Amino acid sequence: MAAQFTQETSARGEWVRQANHFTDRITAEGGSGFPVEPGRYRLIVSLACPWAHRSVIVRRLLGLEDVLSLGIVDPLRDERGWRFTLDPEGRDPVTGLSFLSEAYLKGDPEFAGRYTVPAVVDLRTGSVVTNDYPQISLDLSTEWTRFHRPGAPSLYPPELRADIDEVNAVVFNDINNGVYKCGFATSQQAYERSFEALFARLDEMSRRLESRRYLVGEHITEADVRLFTTLARFDAAYHGHFKCNRYKLTEMPTLWAYARDLFQTPGFGDTVDFEHIKRHYYGTHPQINPNGIVPVGPDLSGWSTPHGREVLGGSPFGDGTPPPAQ
Amino acid sequence: MAAQFTQETSARGEWVRQANHFTDRITAEGGSGFPVEPGRYRLIVSLACPWAHRSVIVRRLLGLEDVLSLGIVDPLRDERGWRFTLDPEGRDPVTGLSFLSEAYLKGDPEFAGRYTVPAVVDLRTGSVVTNDYPQISLDLSTEWTRFHRPGAPSLYPPELRADIDEVNAVVFNDINNGVYKCGFATSQQAYERSFEALFARLDEMSRRLESRRYLVGEHITEADVRLFTTLARFDAAYHGHFKCNRYKLTEMPTLWAYARDLFQTPGFGDTVDFEHIKRHYYGTHPQINPNGIVPVGPDLSGWSTPHGREVLGGSPFGDGTPPPAQ
Repeated sequence: MAAQFTQETSARGEWVRQANHFTDRITAEGGSGFPVEPGRYRLIVSLACPWAHRSVIVRRLLGLEDVLSLGIVDPLRDERGWRFTLDPEGRDPVTGLSFLSEAYLKGDPEFAGRYTVPAVVDLRTGSVVTNDYPQISLDLSTEWTRFHRPGAPSLYPPELRADIDEVNAVVFNDINNGVYKCGFATSQQAYERSFEALFARLDEMSRRLESRRYLVGEHITEADVRLFTTLARFDAAYHGHFKCNRYKLTEMPTLWAYARDLFQTPGFGDTVDFEHIKRHYYGTHPQINPNGIVPVGPDLSGWSTPHGREVLGGSPFGDGTPPPAQ
Repeated sequence: MAAQFTQETSARGEWVRQANHFTDRITAEGGSGFPVEPGRYRLIVSLACPWAHRSVIVRRLLGLEDVLSLGIVDPLRDERGWRFTLDPEGRDPVTGLSFLSEAYLKGDPEFAGRYTVPAVVDLRTGSVVTNDYPQISLDLSTEWTRFHRPGAPSLYPPELRADIDEVNAVVFNDINNGVYKCGFATSQQAYERSFEALFARLDEMSRRLESRRYLVGEHITEADVRLFTTLARFDAAYHGHFKCNRYKLTEMPTLWAYARDLFQTPGFGDTVDFEHIKRHYYGTHPQINPNGIVPVGPDLSGWSTPHGREVLGGSPFGDGTPPPAQ
C-alpha cells in the first residue's frame, strides 16, 4: 500500500493520481468487442469509493440492476488490495474472485498499479474490461439506453453535454480529486495549495447553486452525481481524515441544502453507506491514520432534515420518474 | 517521544497520564522552603498546552505578571522535549535554559518521564519546584494573595471550593484529559469509551450552563478557567486530531456561547494562541499525524461574535475589575 502510494507522490509532495489502465468501452455497437449485453458483465465497486459510487447511483437511476450485476468489496483493503471478504467463503459468487487483483492480472499480467474500483469484469473471460470510471458512468447513460427502465432520467442529454463536461472538469480537479490531494499531500505547501483550491471551488459551486436547484439545467444530471459523491463523504471522512477542515459541509448552507436535496432523492441517499465510508478511509491509509481508529462522529442525522430547495424550481426527474424503492 | 508515550498506554490501549513528579508548593508561609517571593520563580509554559494555559490565565487575571515572570517554549517539541527555540540563541533569557529538561534533571537527575509544562523554576537553583499544574493555578489564587492586583477576582473563594472541586474533578477526567484519552487511545474500544464519556460530560455541562452564566457561582472561577482551556482547543485541534468529532464546539450552542463569552473576557481570549495550538498538536504527535501537516482550517473568526449570555445575569469579575489591556 505505502509503496503504491509512493509511486503517486511527486518530489514536491503532491498527490498525482495514476491514470486509468483499462479503457476498453462497452458500447451499444460493440465495435471494441464488448457489446452491451444483459448478464455479461459485473460491476465491481466499493461502497466507500466516490468514483465507484457514481456508477452505483447511475445504474440505479437508470434501472440497470437486472442487466448489470453488482459485486461489493470489503471496505478494508489489505496489502493485496480490494477483497471479497463480505461474501461467503470470501469469494464473489458470480466471478469467483477473492481479490479484485485477480481480474486485473487476468486482463494484464504485467499490471503493477493500484487495483481500483469501479471495475467492470467480463464474465466470459474473468478479465477487467474497464476501470475508467468517468467513462463507465457516461456509457451507462449513453450506450445502455436499450435497457433503461421506463421513466429513466436523461443524465447526459446532448444539448447539455458541453456544460456538464465543463463543470465536471473543474469539480474533478479541485473537489473530487482535490480532497485526495489535500489528504495525501506530504508537504505543507502542496496541502495548502490544494486546500485553497478546494474551498475556492466549493465557494464557486455554492454561489452557482444559490439560485438554481441543480448544477446544469433543470433536472439531475451526471454533474450532480459527481459532486454528490464527494459531498456525501465530506464530513464523514474528508473533513477530518484529509484535513479539508475550513468548514464542515453542514457549515456551508447552500451546499449542505443541495446535498440533502439529492440525498433525499431516490438513487442518491439510498446508495450511501456511511459505515463503509468511515471504515474504509480511516482503516486503509496507515500513512495518515496509523492506528486505524475510526471516529464515532460526526452526527449524520441532519441528512434527513428538510432542505427547502423546491422553491428554486426544477425537478429531479423532469418528465421521468424516480426509481422504485429498493 | 513514541517511547515515552508507550509508557503511558495500558494493555487495553488506554492512555494513562503520568503522575506529576515535582509537587513542592510555593506558599505564603514558605514552610516547604519555597516562599512566595517576587522575582524568585519563573513560570515556564507552552501556549499550546491546556494545562499550562490555566496558569497563564490565572496569572494575568490576578495581575501577577510583575512578580512571576513567564518563559514560553517553542510549540514544537523534538525528541529532547520542550525547547526555547523562540528565544535569541535558543536560550530562555532568564533561566538560560535551552531545554526544559535541564531544569527537570537538575531537580532530579533520575527523572525519566515526560518533561511537562507548566513548570515553575526556582531561579536560585535552576531546578523545577513544581510541575503540579492543578496546584500551581490554585496556589496563585490562594498563596500569592499579597501580590494580587487591586480588583483581582476571587477565583477559588472558600465558600465555593467544594462545588468548584466537584466540577473540576469530572471536567478533568472526561473533558480536559478525556480529549487526550480519545486521541491517544490505541484500541477502538478504548477510544469509543472515552468518546462517549467526553460527549456525555459536555452535554451535562451544556445543560448546566443553559441557565447560568458560569459553572459555579455568579462570577468566573477556577472551574471556568479549566473548562475554557479545553474548549479553546476543541475545534482547532481535538475535533480532528484527537477524533473528538461528534460535534464541533461551534455546533454545541450553549457551550459555544459560554466559550465565546469567556474568550471575550480579558485574561481569557487574549491568552489564546491558535497558531501555537495548531502547530503543536499536529506537529508533535507522529503516532497519530505522521506527516506533520497542520490543517489550514477551521475558520476561527466566530470567536469574536456576540454571545448573548449577559441576559443570564452574573458578571465576570464580581466586585472586582478586569485586568488592564496588555
